[in-house]
Amino acid sequence: MKKLEQIYEGKAKKVFKTDDPDLYIIDYKDDATAGNGAKKGTIAGKGVINNKMTCSIYKMLESKGIPTHLVKMLSDTEQLDKAVTIFPLEVIVRNTAAGSMSKRVGVPEGTVLTEPIFELSYKNDDYNDPLINDDYAVALNLCTRDEMSQIREMTLKINDILKAYFLEKGVNLVDFKIEFGKTNDGAIVLADEISPDTCRFWDVKTGEKLDKDRFRRDMGNIEEAYQEMLKRVDG
Amino acid sequence: MKKLEQIYEGKAKKVFKTDDPDLYIIDYKDDATAGNGAKKGTIAGKGVINNKMTCSIYKMLESKGIPTHLVKMLSDTEQLDKAVTIFPLEVIVRNTAAGSMSKRVGVPEGTVLTEPIFELSYKNDDYNDPLINDDYAVALNLCTRDEMSQIREMTLKINDILKAYFLEKGVNLVDFKIEFGKTNDGAIVLADEISPDTCRFWDVKTGEKLDKDRFRRDMGNIEEAYQEMLKRVDG
Repeated sequence: MKKLEQIYEGKAKKVFKTDDPDLYIIDYKDDATAGNGAKKGTIAGKGVINNKMTCSIYKMLESKGIPTHLVKMLSDTEQLDKAVTIFPLEVIVRNTAAGSMSKRVGVPEGTVLTEPIFELSYKNDDYNDPLINDDYAVALNLCTRDEMSQIREMTLKINDILKAYFLEKGVNLVDFKIEFGKTNDGAIVLADEISPDTCRFWDVKTGEKLDKDRFRRDMGNIEEAYQEMLKRVDG
Repeated sequence: MKKLEQIYEGKAKKVFKTDDPDLYIIDYKDDATAGNGAKKGTIAGKGVINNKMTCSIYKMLESKGIPTHLVKMLSDTEQLDKAVTIFPLEVIVRNTAAGSMSKRVGVPEGTVLTEPIFELSYKNDDYNDPLINDDYAVALNLCTRDEMSQIREMTLKINDILKAYFLEKGVNLVDFKIEFGKTNDGAIVLADEISPDTCRFWDVKTGEKLDKDRFRRDMGNIEEAYQEMLKRVDG
């Protein structure tokens, strides 16, 4: 497997072609941003942690029937993944009110929701990833109606699996963002990552935040929180 | 029927109790606001026009199987309506991109959508009527899951009827906002109004705007546009 030219650099990862058109190499960075890039910084060791955690979680999800882009971990910061075209959608699930939800609609952070909320943003930096809904996604040609149904169904299943998985590790899965991609043979798979960058993790006993909110809100002990989450997942 | 004390004053209407607990009197005002109250003004004759137009349209909708709050027109600005508890939801349908949709997601105004978009805002002035989705509406206890399904189904049926109705009158129904209420016996009915305040109406031939965008965007000939729409509906 030969790593060829970089085809994309996002806020937290770089994507490289390989000599197999069906495979990419994804390299995780330590760079951190918040507020759609308004705040920038570095979290030491984040690339390694998020790569390792995503590999562990994606393997677990595959074992429970969720197709993902992951082929295997290559190095501390690198994964071999199926080549996919990413749907320009941020798929968000909320189990407890926090962050933008609390700000936008006035539900106090920490309010447990009776049912999970499935939420969509349009990945578009020019418009600050605006909140949309299923109809918008189809109208904007971000996916077809049928792909939207598949994405919703997979997402709610992923939420059920992850909630139980993290609860066993003493962590309350407050909310998370995932992305989906389409492989060269047309399958829809979970892509991107699942890590403290993309989830809100609260310790069940103490309520301590073990995620990127420590960076967003200047709470300190950021690296320690990321390390602690990796320990819970892989420990 | 005795008009008793005022129980609510909105931006464009006043609601009065009557001596029958199942009936309200709604009085339409000439006051106009835009941008969630940031811009205020008066449109001469608007109360009369919106009352008359809403009565005509609601009668037409009733004849096609849509339950509404309307009992009958009482005077130029007054309706007798079923007493309802309003769901705190702005239910929006878009057939063509315009206004906030174009601003938020970058689709040029005038882009015809392949399928209508069903959109929800949470009626809450403190949070500027934030955009939500079905899951939020249920999580925020604005309605039950079953009520949400009923509201969605009624709304799409109303859109089909209104699109055809206005097209016959040479008007393109670009988008509109409606509200639903629950009567004392638990029925969900179309409430509020359907008027140039709550719809975007574009003349089919000339593209001329015949709605509140003339007020929002300081385009002039506001009263004339409202009069023209009443003429098309009742003429």
